[in-house]
Amino acid sequence: MEDYRQMWSDIGVNLEAHDGLLEVLPPLFGDVIVSQENRPARMAYFDSFFAEIHGRRIWELVQEQKQGKKVVGSFCTYVPEEILMALGASSVGLCGGAEVAPEAVDQYLPHNTCALIRSSLGFKLGRVCPYFETSDLVIGETTCDGKKKYYEILGEMANVYVMELPQKKGEPDRLFWRDEVRRLIDRVEELTGEKLDVEKLRQAVKVVNDKRRALLRLAEVRKSSPPVISGKDALLINQIAFLDEPRRFTNKVNELCDELEQRAGAGKGVAGADAPRILMSGCPMAIPNWKLPHIVETSGATVVMEELCTGSRYYRNLVDESDVDLDALVDSVADRYLEIDCAVFTPNEERAENIVRMASEYAVDGVIYYSLMFCTPYGVESYKVKKAVEASGVPFLYVETDYSQGDTQQISTRVQAFLEMIKAG
Amino acid sequence: MEDYRQMWSDIGVNLEAHDGLLEVLPPLFGDVIVSQENRPARMAYFDSFFAEIHGRRIWELVQEQKQGKKVVGSFCTYVPEEILMALGASSVGLCGGAEVAPEAVDQYLPHNTCALIRSSLGFKLGRVCPYFETSDLVIGETTCDGKKKYYEILGEMANVYVMELPQKKGEPDRLFWRDEVRRLIDRVEELTGEKLDVEKLRQAVKVVNDKRRALLRLAEVRKSSPPVISGKDALLINQIAFLDEPRRFTNKVNELCDELEQRAGAGKGVAGADAPRILMSGCPMAIPNWKLPHIVETSGATVVMEELCTGSRYYRNLVDESDVDLDALVDSVADRYLEIDCAVFTPNEERAENIVRMASEYAVDGVIYYSLMFCTPYGVESYKVKKAVEASGVPFLYVETDYSQGDTQQISTRVQAFLEMIKAG
Repeated sequence: MEDYRQMWSDIGVNLEAHDGLLEVLPPLFGDVIVSQENRPARMAYFDSFFAEIHGRRIWELVQEQKQGKKVVGSFCTYVPEEILMALGASSVGLCGGAEVAPEAVDQYLPHNTCALIRSSLGFKLGRVCPYFETSDLVIGETTCDGKKKYYEILGEMANVYVMELPQKKGEPDRLFWRDEVRRLIDRVEELTGEKLDVEKLRQAVKVVNDKRRALLRLAEVRKSSPPVISGKDALLINQIAFLDEPRRFTNKVNELCDELEQRAGAGKGVAGADAPRILMSGCPMAIPNWKLPHIVETSGATVVMEELCTGSRYYRNLVDESDVDLDALVDSVADRYLEIDCAVFTPNEERAENIVRMASEYAVDGVIYYSLMFCTPYGVESYKVKKAVEASGVPFLYVETDYSQGDTQQISTRVQAFLEMIKAG
Repeated sequence: MEDYRQMWSDIGVNLEAHDGLLEVLPPLFGDVIVSQENRPARMAYFDSFFAEIHGRRIWELVQEQKQGKKVVGSFCTYVPEEILMALGASSVGLCGGAEVAPEAVDQYLPHNTCALIRSSLGFKLGRVCPYFETSDLVIGETTCDGKKKYYEILGEMANVYVMELPQKKGEPDRLFWRDEVRRLIDRVEELTGEKLDVEKLRQAVKVVNDKRRALLRLAEVRKSSPPVISGKDALLINQIAFLDEPRRFTNKVNELCDELEQRAGAGKGVAGADAPRILMSGCPMAIPNWKLPHIVETSGATVVMEELCTGSRYYRNLVDESDVDLDALVDSVADRYLEIDCAVFTPNEERAENIVRMASEYAVDGVIYYSLMFCTPYGVESYKVKKAVEASGVPFLYVETDYSQGDTQQISTRVQAFLEMIKAG
């Protein structure tokens, strides 16, 4: 640990404030993640990754930078990591899962801004996110109003480039977005000094597709009953997907899947086959935001799928690998990202359809809809999703919350009542 | 009045609920607007328009419909009314300034959705907005997250078409928006059965430019000291701009300006020259939302300019009338709308610059920033505006509120303290 202090200090981390964070995270991780029963043995890698989340992984990135590589931070599944990787940059998701420096944040953002955005600014103002501090460039996107306007403020303290996402998915939008991805290529080429070619991009597409294929394999084995892995463990893996070196991560997920498939064959689960199966749907859950899955799983249910940005929205779609020329491959990358069914699009009927389909495929007993407080796109879209889910005969619970613990008891009570209703039904 | 009841019933208004609204509006108008001292005589027209806001004006629109014309409702300054007018449709702004049927709205929208959107849905669910009920088509726009997602719900109960606004203002955005305006033309041609040509559009551009020129003339005379018209009266006129027949409205504004210019020449004001002059900046104020200007003006200050959608954002920019071919003129119309400096754009530095410039031109003593509660774009943008305004030496007050009256006393206290500070400074 002592080695890292110099590194953190060198990259600009506020050591004192960061020490405070390091006092809180490990015990939280122990209580919420490590203490679970019947965990797969191969979760050990992800536990150790978490233990070194601000240490070893940052050290690796700093080594890459010393060799001339660049680190690019982002906040959203819409930033095409294939492009970053092909141009020699390492892509990392930035911190945003815990309340940090709220009084400082109040100087910049209204109190009723979503917790993820307030958290992100808090990490930056407090200088306690080493991923942020190592980033040579931060890529934002015009997804929701909150992030779009937050990036203007962030631009005062970091090197920020904002991609413009369209708001519909018609042909004009597709063409606009393909051009926007090309503008990103220009910007990243400028950053890394490399020039994109088809071989680099094909390789990167393969690596990222492999990562998503591993997560799809993990998703597939979770259809088994009894569930072979907890929702909290699966979420942790999906969270780490935004941080870890992709090839190593893919190997580790596949090794875990070997174990889980054996478990499934042997009928060995983390919970009984009678535990209610839950689909968690909605907003991203950034590390260490395990609040709602923890409530659900300590109430006797198991989350068997995450319809979240830190979940299926990240890995559901692959890039078509068959393209042999650069232009076609760039278009395929762009098109893959435009398929993501985030609530910021209008209309976004496919999201409700995907949720209903997943609820059936995963034989879930209920959908719990997670809306970050003040997240307007997911909040308003819950009306359509609720209607579609209930029409398919699946119970639905809407939960709106933030990163505070003040409502934990109240949410627990609602979740328990929901599970009682499921069991009674 | 009896005549109108049949008409309201015919167009689908819920008479009983509407009666409730009619019991509340006139006394509110009397207290807030009519009771003001030293009002210009020519406000009589706008008072009478308001008295017949759901009567005579709706009757006119219904007569037009009987002759085959169409009525198009919209919510936002980004919907190009020149296009609607040129294609033979009457354009009206839809209701959204009062809390209506909140329990019914709760079935569709999260409680922390902005009051304007909740109000709009309440008016529709309660069937108490005759402008909504007469609309043959409703045009939404992808400005903010709240409206964008609300239109999906509204689409279940009305004929809704959503224009896609870009989120930046670069060249790709301009081209995209020009095409989007052409897609609107297709849709409105389909609605009215008319075909756009350059003469029709030139005429409409002239009519709408004339309307905006009249409002610019009104804005200009408000630079005088003492102020020749109250902010509440000016706001009322700006609100009526979205509803009235445009040629008549223009004449009436110009007649009023004749009177106001005489007043200015004679040094006759609605308040003393020592009353603090306030620039009101931020979100739209739909009828009958006069809450904040009423607090400000009953606290001894005068609002001398509205940097609002129901204010300068509506009339600041004109369409270039010099174009002689249809394509160029359509582009000019599109470009004029893209100049609007709404907080939904990123970056939007020109808005802060415009506010600082206006604060100087109108010799204001303070800027009061009005953010509708849960309006993320205006809420977050207040940080940049505050910084720019205070750097220019002008005091700044941020007020976040909704349509309830519960916070009136608290806001009054803050406004009075702000005005005391101004007087002391």
